[in-house]
Amino acid sequence: MINVAVLGYGTVGSGVYEVLVKNKESIAKRVGDEINVKYVLDLRDFPGDPVQEVLVHDFDTIVNDPEVDIVAEAMGGLEPAYTFAKKTLESGKSYCTSNKELVAKYGPELLELAKSKGKNFLFEASVGGGIPIIRPLNQSLTADELTEITGILNGTTNFILSKMAKEGSSFDAVLKEAQNLGYAERNPAADVEGYDACRKIAILSSLAYGCHVDFEDIYTEGITKITDIDFKYAKKLGLSIKLFGKSKKVDDKCYAMVAPFMIDSDNPLYSVNGVLNGILVKGDVIGDVMFYGAGAGKLPTASAVVADIVDEAKHLHTNIMTIWSNKKLALENLSTLKNKFFVRFDGSVDSKMSEVTKAFGDVKVVTVEGLDNEFAVITEVMTEAEFEAAAAKVNGVKSRIRVEA
Amino acid sequence: MINVAVLGYGTVGSGVYEVLVKNKESIAKRVGDEINVKYVLDLRDFPGDPVQEVLVHDFDTIVNDPEVDIVAEAMGGLEPAYTFAKKTLESGKSYCTSNKELVAKYGPELLELAKSKGKNFLFEASVGGGIPIIRPLNQSLTADELTEITGILNGTTNFILSKMAKEGSSFDAVLKEAQNLGYAERNPAADVEGYDACRKIAILSSLAYGCHVDFEDIYTEGITKITDIDFKYAKKLGLSIKLFGKSKKVDDKCYAMVAPFMIDSDNPLYSVNGVLNGILVKGDVIGDVMFYGAGAGKLPTASAVVADIVDEAKHLHTNIMTIWSNKKLALENLSTLKNKFFVRFDGSVDSKMSEVTKAFGDVKVVTVEGLDNEFAVITEVMTEAEFEAAAAKVNGVKSRIRVEA
Repeated sequence: MINVAVLGYGTVGSGVYEVLVKNKESIAKRVGDEINVKYVLDLRDFPGDPVQEVLVHDFDTIVNDPEVDIVAEAMGGLEPAYTFAKKTLESGKSYCTSNKELVAKYGPELLELAKSKGKNFLFEASVGGGIPIIRPLNQSLTADELTEITGILNGTTNFILSKMAKEGSSFDAVLKEAQNLGYAERNPAADVEGYDACRKIAILSSLAYGCHVDFEDIYTEGITKITDIDFKYAKKLGLSIKLFGKSKKVDDKCYAMVAPFMIDSDNPLYSVNGVLNGILVKGDVIGDVMFYGAGAGKLPTASAVVADIVDEAKHLHTNIMTIWSNKKLALENLSTLKNKFFVRFDGSVDSKMSEVTKAFGDVKVVTVEGLDNEFAVITEVMTEAEFEAAAAKVNGVKSRIRVEA
Repeated sequence: MINVAVLGYGTVGSGVYEVLVKNKESIAKRVGDEINVKYVLDLRDFPGDPVQEVLVHDFDTIVNDPEVDIVAEAMGGLEPAYTFAKKTLESGKSYCTSNKELVAKYGPELLELAKSKGKNFLFEASVGGGIPIIRPLNQSLTADELTEITGILNGTTNFILSKMAKEGSSFDAVLKEAQNLGYAERNPAADVEGYDACRKIAILSSLAYGCHVDFEDIYTEGITKITDIDFKYAKKLGLSIKLFGKSKKVDDKCYAMVAPFMIDSDNPLYSVNGVLNGILVKGDVIGDVMFYGAGAGKLPTASAVVADIVDEAKHLHTNIMTIWSNKKLALENLSTLKNKFFVRFDGSVDSKMSEVTKAFGDVKVVTVEGLDNEFAVITEVMTEAEFEAAAAKVNGVKSRIRVEA
């Protein structure tokens, strides 16, 4: 019997407990041993819930119990998670977590600590919810030099953008609806400003390129400036607008960003709608592979945490190598990164096009019936710096969105 | 240094050699040791190719060399692959393969043999080419009871169907084009009759449900009866036609089949076009996850073989558990399986509908301009047996395609 403690009995933590009970038999078959939840840690009590029997309020009970082999954390936030993770690993137990803040900030340190103890620190659920992505990056795409990752990594913003695309509603209206449905927080900044996606692309990029990508270095632009008008143009163009966490290696340079992109229907991420996530990985041998599924939610996220528990139970005394060195990967300034751009302008095509062409060169003009005294263009591929320089030369630039070239 | 032998220097085998040379450094970093190709086995010679230096014509040279740790096979076919696999494992080396015939027929036996020797038998490349699917099934989706797998598992037929959909061409014309492009064999039966997809869904189902699904038990219907006329109806309905390998568990019953299905744009497999593959897996906890990428081709397939080599190199003395028992899973007769059906009839709607409704109950009628004296319907959900009984009652049933309900 392998004893597990679950930290936190919120949405994900209660899901982990539920899955370990529900699929006890098939999980035991896969592990080759029974998984027993010996403790659940929460400050609250849950009278009437069977969890009450194993509920404890003090982390020390867990870390000091030599019978506990694996600690699964589903609390979120840096503290006390970081302290708990360190104490767990130091005491010779394995740790797994759905906590992306913890992993983005302390991933390499905790991996190193786990390795030094011959234990494991796993975090499949920290990116893409239930979608297997961390383990495939680590164990499946090992023949490849990975060159690019593009992900729809945040379900809340994808829900909002999908709804805006489908219904033509404004950002504010859809955000309110998402909040009422429980898909968005009362304070939605972590999602809509792109901070959540930023931590996730930092984790994926670190694993893909084998160096530490610091999330604080990543240029991050959310979706709060995307309007229903942008979607009118997108519809006319047959494009969709998605919030991407994106990183790529060009020669020896590495770029990373979070920003909305317009993409066409040839992109496999085009049809990833609603709260779903999709992650497209490019390798020098394998080409493009995509992983798709529920990026959040109680049970899908719990599924990934439990998969980590199973993996740790199968490797109680063997460190599963994870390549994520402490060596920091210096990100390039975006100014040399190339994209097409969708740009909206005040004024009429007739009055403005010579000015626009002079600044931007060849562009594709888009007008939408009913949108008077404005128009948009899609530029050729240019660097961010070239775009900024060109945009500064024309009066009345209303907004711009990058277009996947 | 870990020594590897590659069996077969055809398309995939030469890709494996190329990748091991090209990405030598990054692969060594992941393994923690250098991978050296000590032998390549082929009956032919390749004068001028650097492979000539390590080329051997006799398998015994490889199996009798105690320095060889891992044998990677990319020859295809049951023999001599089966003999080579057995001898390799018996001699205490690990074996990996892209050979779906071998895996579908001898998978459980070779896994058992590998386990008894503390070595590994891996076969990521046997399904879905480069797409990570075997390892995720085995190591990532471990929290779930898997209930359903639906895959576009054959690139050739998906290329043909995608082209027919896009261009309105006939099956024969597109098949000829695919043959000229090298996407289809001169004798295309293995692809177009569904035999290839059949072996692949047998392998995936065996791993997902933990029992042996015998490919010979699987009802298999190819795409040779799909016509340009079917696509005219599909277009009118906004549906696409895909060849699915499909299995599902309903209560304690397991169904498996290979057949063309009509699906709508809500299905994530809808936009998997051309030679690409997509595999949708449903679990009781995780919901739907999809894996997507190049299902064939020299380098993608080589990427998966090399990933197996890396995994075996990291587990030289540890068997990685794979749940695929010898216990045969008895498949249900399809007669109780439920689908909607698309059915084409001779004659006019006016003259025939009362007869059709009497036999099939409520249906949705579809007519296409320019198609005279025929029409089609989509039925409600019914069992295969109910469908057969109904179809026998109406004269002039021209064809039928299952519709994903």
